[in-house]
Amino acid sequence: MRQAHTTLALSTSGRGLTEITGRIAAWVRGTGMSNGLVTVFVRHTSASLLIQENADPAVTRDLERFLARLVPDGDPLFEHVDEGDDDMPAHVRAALTQTQLSIPLCEGRLALGTWQGIYLFEHRRRGHRREVVLHALGD
Amino acid sequence: MRQAHTTLALSTSGRGLTEITGRIAAWVRGTGMSNGLVTVFVRHTSASLLIQENADPAVTRDLERFLARLVPDGDPLFEHVDEGDDDMPAHVRAALTQTQLSIPLCEGRLALGTWQGIYLFEHRRRGHRREVVLHALGD
Amino acid sequence: MRQAHTTLALSTSGRGLTEITGRIAAWVRGTGMSNGLVTVFVRHTSASLLIQENADPAVTRDLERFLARLVPDGDPLFEHVDEGDDDMPAHVRAALTQTQLSIPLCEGRLALGTWQGIYLFEHRRRGHRREVVLHALGD
Repeated sequence: MRQAHTTLALSTSGRGLTEITGRIAAWVRGTGMSNGLVTVFVRHTSASLLIQENADPAVTRDLERFLARLVPDGDPLFEHVDEGDDDMPAHVRAALTQTQLSIPLCEGRLALGTWQGIYLFEHRRRGHRREVVLHALGD
Repeated sequence: MRQAHTTLALSTSGRGLTEITGRIAAWVRGTGMSNGLVTVFVRHTSASLLIQENADPAVTRDLERFLARLVPDGDPLFEHVDEGDDDMPAHVRAALTQTQLSIPLCEGRLALGTWQGIYLFEHRRRGHRREVVLHALGD
Repeated sequence: MRQAHTTLALSTSGRGLTEITGRIAAWVRGTGMSNGLVTVFVRHTSASLLIQENADPAVTRDLERFLARLVPDGDPLFEHVDEGDDDMPAHVRAALTQTQLSIPLCEGRLALGTWQGIYLFEHRRRGHRREVVLHALGD
């Protein structure tokens, strides 16, 4: 049993989902492990992770639209507004989705279903530089 | 330290929660491990996982009712409607709950609290065949 | 590769977030591990875990306020009311946040970003005694 870790640096171009399945799978292949547990961890509180359908791009657009309505920018409920009226909504959206995902690695493949993709979800209106830590434990 | 994995095939009978704690605990016992980390991963984006109270069945009924109101079927907000008016709501409900859960295994027992059960949450109105991957790492 | 686990007993003073990053980091240091995977698991269904910004305390106040509005106490939708009108809202709030978090441990440090703190989120109005299981796998 052994382990490996790395950090992916990603640039987002504003609100929305960016698929990172390919980069994660490539890194896992590079570790040479066939079975184990792969953990993805985002080092931010205004961006998050999500596993979602990667077949029809309308799914991720609809997800974004749903969250924009559920947690509207500029909501007078929020006190934390110094960094912009989209900052606190970004924290709430991150709280409602995931900061971390772990995916079993079985016989050389991530155990994702046919239509599952791993996404980085940017919740701020402007693009940001984001760090995602990958960790694998296995053999 | 060693590992094991398997896939559970489950049939749901439509929207709602199915407890799978017993099947997971039985598989873990079969691995012979006493201490480790058990990961549960659902291979779909319109079903999800949840740890919830398993004492009063009204809790899971109320959860279902809350999500049905928060993410109504047939919402005109949604563009992705080809697979039915309950498809995009199912993706949103999955995004707001969990695709993966990891539970410590301590001295031969999953570290669940007295009232915690592990559930597969079907978000489509019709029943589906669902796959849940189990992975254990420990000794 | 080795593992360790412990249980933290925490007293909450009612609804809201309590930072537990320091206690987790101290326990991890005590295991002597430098690289691995640390899992935090809450043994309750009316309290949960969250990674959020720990710089401005207004963020956690705003999160609490958002959830109080999204899942109001005393909502006539709920059938499970025997334990009080804040009980079923607590279960829903727990379902929308996390029961478990895993954080990579890299070169002696949890892979948290600069502003990320790990919080126990109490969802009942009254304070409760809560148990959080910590598990580490690594070397």
